[in-house]
Amino acid sequence: MTRNINLFFILLQASFIHATTAIPKVVIAIHGGTADHEEISPLLEKEILDGLATSLKAGYQILKNKGGSLAAVEAAVKVLENNPLFNAGKGAVFTEEGKNEMDASIMEGRTKKAGAVASTTIIKNPISAARAVMEKTRHVLLVGNGADQFAKDNGLEIVDPKYFYTERRWKEWQKSKQKKNQNKQSGLPTPWNRHFSLGTTGAVALDPLGNLAAATSTGGLTNKMHGRVGDSPLIGAGTYADNETAAISCTGVGEYFIRFGVAHEITALMKYKGYDVAKASDTLIQETLKPLKVEGAAIVLDAKGNLAFSYFAEGLPRGYVTDDGVLHLLIFEKETTQSLR
Amino acid sequence: MTRNINLFFILLQASFIHATTAIPKVVIAIHGGTADHEEISPLLEKEILDGLATSLKAGYQILKNKGGSLAAVEAAVKVLENNPLFNAGKGAVFTEEGKNEMDASIMEGRTKKAGAVASTTIIKNPISAARAVMEKTRHVLLVGNGADQFAKDNGLEIVDPKYFYTERRWKEWQKSKQKKNQNKQSGLPTPWNRHFSLGTTGAVALDPLGNLAAATSTGGLTNKMHGRVGDSPLIGAGTYADNETAAISCTGVGEYFIRFGVAHEITALMKYKGYDVAKASDTLIQETLKPLKVEGAAIVLDAKGNLAFSYFAEGLPRGYVTDDGVLHLLIFEKETTQSLR
Repeated sequence: MTRNINLFFILLQASFIHATTAIPKVVIAIHGGTADHEEISPLLEKEILDGLATSLKAGYQILKNKGGSLAAVEAAVKVLENNPLFNAGKGAVFTEEGKNEMDASIMEGRTKKAGAVASTTIIKNPISAARAVMEKTRHVLLVGNGADQFAKDNGLEIVDPKYFYTERRWKEWQKSKQKKNQNKQSGLPTPWNRHFSLGTTGAVALDPLGNLAAATSTGGLTNKMHGRVGDSPLIGAGTYADNETAAISCTGVGEYFIRFGVAHEITALMKYKGYDVAKASDTLIQETLKPLKVEGAAIVLDAKGNLAFSYFAEGLPRGYVTDDGVLHLLIFEKETTQSLR
Repeated sequence: MTRNINLFFILLQASFIHATTAIPKVVIAIHGGTADHEEISPLLEKEILDGLATSLKAGYQILKNKGGSLAAVEAAVKVLENNPLFNAGKGAVFTEEGKNEMDASIMEGRTKKAGAVASTTIIKNPISAARAVMEKTRHVLLVGNGADQFAKDNGLEIVDPKYFYTERRWKEWQKSKQKKNQNKQSGLPTPWNRHFSLGTTGAVALDPLGNLAAATSTGGLTNKMHGRVGDSPLIGAGTYADNETAAISCTGVGEYFIRFGVAHEITALMKYKGYDVAKASDTLIQETLKPLKVEGAAIVLDAKGNLAFSYFAEGLPRGYVTDDGVLHLLIFEKETTQSLR
């Protein structure tokens, strides 16, 4: 585990607490879904890095002010949801029917409480709805109309479904449909084209009280069927948090993350085999999913501040910040795991 | 692990293969949700045992004819869905809005392929829809209108939502609402009343090729919120199957099963700690959930035919049959685990 030399170091215009202990007091890390070189122009790269920075700043601000990890991951993901570049909230991809259906979940490591929404259509920030499910209901997961209705009843910001329209995602959807039709005519199977679904978002954080939290939000896969739910809103698949092990947020072809219970399996490897965050995440992403050619990633943070980004893809827009307040942002570096400590 | 002496032995009027090897060639086991003494009259007890027998016969028939475990668990659960006594399909409980919303999932241990539907309203047999999602789509989970639409498009039996009305469940719902209102007026919190939700259904099976499968189907919790999804349709929470470890179907207050990733955690304990089916299931049900006063159960079957029923409740309607064709059916026996071998 070596820290990668190609990290982008961007110093924020703000004062930061500098770590004096070996264990970071606060850590927040985020991801914005896997990415390929060909789809990231230099301009887009800059915009993505800016978006990641804004997200991390929002989460870090909360931690710096002794806020909780739960509030920090919600704030960080909310910023990504509001950014049309990422496949969550505003930038959600289109379903087979040309609509937007969003999924999100959040979990806190101290209590293992969790909340999630899936297949929502009018909630501006699904991650905040997920938190509200956790805090205001006896349930963990609300879906479809029920989730939308709950959000309305609980004062969450409601938008017209048109809010989620972005030209870029619409064009991607058209292209994806075209490709599907071509394949149909030529008798070829239609593999998931992850290229058209760039940008599931997620965050993990450790707060000054030593509590972990994780959050994930997505628009899912381009051209997914109406009602399809992936791993992002499923506790144990795309999201998990347990102070005893780690906070985890995943991205990738969700169906495989569900079948392998990726987030929960990472915690099992840590708990029962003594693996560290890097070895546990690599076991899933590099040793289990890569041989199946399943692109994806997991970001994993333990309660001592050890952090791993494991991904199988050309790149993973990601970043982190710890006590020293230095933002670390990057997109590419093939199949490596960077440990923060 | 001793076989309980109070088992009900019921011999079917049919010829059965008798086991000659130490390892059973086929096993099928089912459950019908947790139960209390006070809610099971002698008449209801007999009806429940009859319902379990019919379900096991359907599944066993398939295995005896060298059918697969996937088909066997589907057939067994389908029988329970069609029986108004169980909280799945026909006998589903009512939501807060007085409607029925059903969840189901199925998984095969050889491929770890899985399918699920949640919050469906017009599918007569949600378990068959779950299997169709697994076999006919690239997805694992479809919810709400999307799941209903998929079932329509794929020739599954569609019924009017009125089909799911049963007087017993309607009365339970009225009682549950009344209790909630009383508690509201007196300022008391409203705990989940599991009594009103008797009967989530599930099955696990091992076929002559050594393949495991698991299936779970439910109407969820009485008075649940519109759109609430519990553990039953969530792979890793209420259902899991992996030939390397076990096939598992759970029942109980789903929210806890989701947060603890119960089904997947059982496989992790087997894989990484070497626990057998009984110790792994007891670790979750007796050592994790019982101290939290969370009623529930897991039935766990490994590829060698070892079977455990672990439950924290007064009873668990359940049964199994193996090579010798003897049906074992029972409802009560407090907090014990019976091992088949």
